[in-house]
Amino acid sequence: MFEISPIGVVSSPLTDPAAAPKQGDEGAPDAWLSFEPAVAAALADLAPGQEVLLLTWFHRAARDVLAVRPRGAADRPLTGVFSTRSPDRPNPIGLHRVTVLEVDGLRIKVNNLEALDGTPIVDVKPVLGEVAER
Amino acid sequence: MFEISPIGVVSSPLTDPAAAPKQGDEGAPDAWLSFEPAVAAALADLAPGQEVLLLTWFHRAARDVLAVRPRGAADRPLTGVFSTRSPDRPNPIGLHRVTVLEVDGLRIKVNNLEALDGTPIVDVKPVLGEVAER
Repeated sequence: MFEISPIGVVSSPLTDPAAAPKQGDEGAPDAWLSFEPAVAAALADLAPGQEVLLLTWFHRAARDVLAVRPRGAADRPLTGVFSTRSPDRPNPIGLHRVTVLEVDGLRIKVNNLEALDGTPIVDVKPVLGEVAER
Repeated sequence: MFEISPIGVVSSPLTDPAAAPKQGDEGAPDAWLSFEPAVAAALADLAPGQEVLLLTWFHRAARDVLAVRPRGAADRPLTGVFSTRSPDRPNPIGLHRVTVLEVDGLRIKVNNLEALDGTPIVDVKPVLGEVAER
């Protein structure tokens, strides 16, 4: 077992799982990310315009679900969750590609985030560019 | 705090962190992923040729490191870890884009994996295609 400590939380107009977009590029709204003071130094180089991968913890997920019908569609076959982006999975880590819009101290505004209000944040990573530019 | 349960482990010829490629597309070898029987149903739809995102737990990471010199280069400025792919970070989750080469029951062979031998696996997700194809 490993322990994850949340480093922040999502503030979003999305509060209803049934009404939330399935993915960020399907009409998801802007959201604010509020980080813990303890990780300020880790955030220091994030700036508007950057594309990042936001990792969250789907705190409402069912961890004992191993197969789902993709996108909740009754006419699609049961599919192993490692072949889907279902939030229900053994380790419910969310992965979201977003662009930084604004930085205000420990708060960062991003676009296209389908995570619900109150979702814990666990990591932020840069999108990798070409090998020669790393 | 949230608890992550490893769902499998990486078997790789890479055993020395200093000698491992920094990223999978920088000459990383093929590796076998060995999964726990408990997640067999979640794996069931993975097949050769698919591109997946493998999430691991960097079990040797230093979780109190908040800034690093990218790629360990002494001439690069200290940079907040959320702007780097350093394994040292508050929640040391690794993210690896790999292609499935072979499936043998609970074992899956993938290409281009820079994770070290013995690295715990925490999740597998499909790479998302175009919106209309989801």
